[in-house]
Amino acid sequence: MGFLKAKGETYKAVDNVDLGPHSNEFYLRANVKAPRMAGFLVKVFVWFLEMPIFGSVMLYFLKRNNLIHKHVTFAELQESPLYVPLHSYEGKEEKEVICVEYGASPSEQVGQASGCLPSILEPPKYSFSRWTILDYSTAYNSKLITPRKVMERFLSAVHRSSTCSMQMSFFINFDADDILRQATMSTNRYEQGEPLSVLDGVPIAIKDEIDCMPYPTTGGTKWMHKVRGCKDDAECVKRLRSCGAILVGKTNMHELGAGTSGINPHHGTTRNPYNVARIAGGSSSGSAAVVAAGLCPAALGVDGGGSVRMPAALCGVVGFKPSFGRVSHSGILPLNWTVGMVGVLAATVEDALLVYAAISSPKSSDQSETAQPKLCFPLLKSPKLIPNIKLAKYGEWFNDCSDDIRSCCSQALAKLYKSYGWKTIEVTVPEIEVMRLAHYVTIGSECNTSIARELEKLNKEELGWDARVALSVYGSFSSQEYLNAQRIRNRQLQIHKRIFSKADVIVTPTTGVTAYTIQKDVRETGELDYINGAALVRYQIAGNFLGLPAVTIPVGYDMSGLPIGLQFIGKPWDESLLIHIAFGMQALCISEYKRPEVFFDLLGK
Amino acid sequence: MGFLKAKGETYKAVDNVDLGPHSNEFYLRANVKAPRMAGFLVKVFVWFLEMPIFGSVMLYFLKRNNLIHKHVTFAELQESPLYVPLHSYEGKEEKEVICVEYGASPSEQVGQASGCLPSILEPPKYSFSRWTILDYSTAYNSKLITPRKVMERFLSAVHRSSTCSMQMSFFINFDADDILRQATMSTNRYEQGEPLSVLDGVPIAIKDEIDCMPYPTTGGTKWMHKVRGCKDDAECVKRLRSCGAILVGKTNMHELGAGTSGINPHHGTTRNPYNVARIAGGSSSGSAAVVAAGLCPAALGVDGGGSVRMPAALCGVVGFKPSFGRVSHSGILPLNWTVGMVGVLAATVEDALLVYAAISSPKSSDQSETAQPKLCFPLLKSPKLIPNIKLAKYGEWFNDCSDDIRSCCSQALAKLYKSYGWKTIEVTVPEIEVMRLAHYVTIGSECNTSIARELEKLNKEELGWDARVALSVYGSFSSQEYLNAQRIRNRQLQIHKRIFSKADVIVTPTTGVTAYTIQKDVRETGELDYINGAALVRYQIAGNFLGLPAVTIPVGYDMSGLPIGLQFIGKPWDESLLIHIAFGMQALCISEYKRPEVFFDLLGK
Repeated sequence: MGFLKAKGETYKAVDNVDLGPHSNEFYLRANVKAPRMAGFLVKVFVWFLEMPIFGSVMLYFLKRNNLIHKHVTFAELQESPLYVPLHSYEGKEEKEVICVEYGASPSEQVGQASGCLPSILEPPKYSFSRWTILDYSTAYNSKLITPRKVMERFLSAVHRSSTCSMQMSFFINFDADDILRQATMSTNRYEQGEPLSVLDGVPIAIKDEIDCMPYPTTGGTKWMHKVRGCKDDAECVKRLRSCGAILVGKTNMHELGAGTSGINPHHGTTRNPYNVARIAGGSSSGSAAVVAAGLCPAALGVDGGGSVRMPAALCGVVGFKPSFGRVSHSGILPLNWTVGMVGVLAATVEDALLVYAAISSPKSSDQSETAQPKLCFPLLKSPKLIPNIKLAKYGEWFNDCSDDIRSCCSQALAKLYKSYGWKTIEVTVPEIEVMRLAHYVTIGSECNTSIARELEKLNKEELGWDARVALSVYGSFSSQEYLNAQRIRNRQLQIHKRIFSKADVIVTPTTGVTAYTIQKDVRETGELDYINGAALVRYQIAGNFLGLPAVTIPVGYDMSGLPIGLQFIGKPWDESLLIHIAFGMQALCISEYKRPEVFFDLLGK
Repeated sequence: MGFLKAKGETYKAVDNVDLGPHSNEFYLRANVKAPRMAGFLVKVFVWFLEMPIFGSVMLYFLKRNNLIHKHVTFAELQESPLYVPLHSYEGKEEKEVICVEYGASPSEQVGQASGCLPSILEPPKYSFSRWTILDYSTAYNSKLITPRKVMERFLSAVHRSSTCSMQMSFFINFDADDILRQATMSTNRYEQGEPLSVLDGVPIAIKDEIDCMPYPTTGGTKWMHKVRGCKDDAECVKRLRSCGAILVGKTNMHELGAGTSGINPHHGTTRNPYNVARIAGGSSSGSAAVVAAGLCPAALGVDGGGSVRMPAALCGVVGFKPSFGRVSHSGILPLNWTVGMVGVLAATVEDALLVYAAISSPKSSDQSETAQPKLCFPLLKSPKLIPNIKLAKYGEWFNDCSDDIRSCCSQALAKLYKSYGWKTIEVTVPEIEVMRLAHYVTIGSECNTSIARELEKLNKEELGWDARVALSVYGSFSSQEYLNAQRIRNRQLQIHKRIFSKADVIVTPTTGVTAYTIQKDVRETGELDYINGAALVRYQIAGNFLGLPAVTIPVGYDMSGLPIGLQFIGKPWDESLLIHIAFGMQALCISEYKRPEVFFDLLGK
């Protein structure tokens, strides 16, 4: 099909790209050429796509029309490929942090982190009874309530959320007996005055992409657990368990993580606690929703293309994705190798910090090919402690979102400047849409390769219709497309390094749209909505493709009362500054946070 | 074409693979299903391959029949991908070595290395007048001859080698004026008693894949230099120049390095100095042949799939490929990113060491993502100094070569044991043929991607016919094939690490066949001879795919008087032990080395 070949883009040398505010780099809007589809249309589309030769031709045109050919396949690049976004650590002195020695136990790390938190009594606080990890710990220690009692309430709440009137579809699996057993053990520890850490007795939910005993790991599918048994906790779950956390089940997710809505034909569509007619976002849908609904102060997700941060923003909670390599990937479904990372969903920055402290296992140079810096926690006494923070903002990109999001996020930046003197500086981040395409080629190629053998054996009908579309596209990428995507990764890393030489973090809205409506036709076939999909992932990609840490904070609500998130993207390994900044942002918003429509008060009297 | 899908291999966990001598791992012989083709047949084949749809179908069956589908594409693997064979350095104490500080200049490094060599007067020596770098240096210092005089003889010899009766096709480009200018400057330095190093005035030839002023870099093609100008010396060439070496031109090579014979339709077929009716091997054909013919004591090549070691073995010289990352790749044609490395072709191990010392630029942890160990040179006083060296040999593999090679290489091992007590231990290296296929997918995918944009603009007729076949196959690989190849890379690295825990080096013949005949029908179209090709690369792949250092030493001749090489493959970064072992082997063979049919004596009176 050479005569139909798209002309490839010729990229200029990175050093010649102007990253300043007045750059003439063109801001390319997502050029998604695919109409929304659901129901019968999706089935017909899949039928065509999976045809032997005609399907290949369709995929060719899909990739061409969506500019993959122009920007990736046939591009002219000077860069060599960068395959893994694992950054070398340039030792630097960090301010206002406490660092943990290599090899500390999870509970020691949690202890250090909790020492960094502001006093529990200190305002400002939530405008409603949203309980934090320290609230749980204090209640247990002061015998106000026992873990056993809380988990009974939890089970009853989950039961209510599953009734026909609510159908929240939070969990794919949870085992009441196992939960009560853990709760009883925790209760005993508190009775003996020997809790394992501040996480002891605290309910934490786990995305069903992460191994956690005694559950199968479905990855949101009907079949994954049948071909891949779960024999042990994932490393991060093991660490939470050793801190006494109660693992309360496996949360719902978009099938195979291959979508952003959380609409799942096998396990139901997770509903948004702020408005049950809306999506929770994905792929870590259930983990975001249970935290928003007050069932857990925190949950684990996995973020391969914004899958922690997007649902966090849509559900009005904090979503935190550490640097690539910070958390062990052992025991996570290997749906990709170079973009995914475990992340934390939590109701507050403080709780995200505590869970992050529990699950991180930094490797010293003796243990790893690339030495990682020590794990450091910011002293969250007052955000004013660090002055002169510079937030890089690319106006064209920042503003490429709904009006409500734009004005809400802009106001948030104004507050930061007013309260702390943190300045926003204008920059240009070129080729963002190119990076999205390159990331899509990468995660698609890796996902396809990692499960190709299983897919072969599978009856296609075990798969959801939208997953079948995704997998058809994923399987169509050539080695040339994959390798050029890695060259774009190298290019973008250089661009981001230059931006970070001028600013501490990059600031963006977290998503381009708020939670949209779950339409009636999605029940059986799911939905293909690449336009909303592109708006959701618009600000996510650098976090995954370049392995940068990133965090989303709720900063307000749109006209319909749906949450809006603001995202900070940090330098490699510099999670402590990122958490510090997020904490500062939260302090200015938390008293205005609204109670979700679906909310359970597990600690209240 | 799902109904034609080959069943994929299911690989067992590496820990369950028996690597001992009595393993029941099956030795898979290269299953090349392609007849030798040349002349008109090749043209027809290319015509079919390049057809839009029929070509894709042909490529599908080619890959299927050659077991790529079974062993790579549809394989079931537990490993994650390893993309770059850059090894972490586990600091270890080395014995009998001298190590150079980071940041030493090339001439300082050469000075250190020359201090490690045995005294120049020490026997044993060549049975004929083959001059070494120290011979040149001594002759210049003692005013026996000047660099200017030697280079005049060089030019006259090259002239003779190009006459109709010889047609050696050593060089693609050389510039008499530039060579004489360098020689005059060197002569002046010696007159002033200020040579830059022992390399001053020594002729060194450069493969035409490496940038070297004032020449274009053709990569063996008719077009590469037209789209990619050469503006500076490659880093390794810069370093040689700073040591005073005379850069005597750009040696012939297989087009794009995409073949092993050195048959080049554009620049002529390099002939083997031991028998001008035979190939020199490839792809660094000219570099091997000029060293064998006495025109240079050493030359640079690039080794992406044995391209230094194969022609070295076929031409009876030493071929040394350092660990991946030891020599800067800057200024080398980017025909691949993860398998190629600059290597040295030299008449003796000592000369390979001196040139290696000049071109290596180890990076400290401040300069590089992955710290490299310091550059160390073995003290080559006596090979007996290091006792108890263990050579791992896999019998089935070792013996998969011609009878002459088998008996000659076996005798060499017997000599090592008899003279030094170095023991051969039997091991099993499983899945060697699988690694060859995975490497082929890797180098093919990377080569295609790196030059895809140039190929698009090119009139196909600028390419040789055999290169067109190679590029058709290279362009056919999917991202799944590339990623599974990288998973096999990880698997093989683990296998090799286990073997290296039991032995110091792996020993093999360098090639499965000696230099074969240049047939009459190859002149215009080149030749497709994948059976001989597979026999040539049989022992090469670990060096490239796993980034291991490797060296080939001439150990004898077959019944037709053609050279035979023995290869040692070393642990990552352990070049010093490898050179030590090669030196020991050479000491037992050098006095029996035979004078090539085409040989020039540049220093003789």
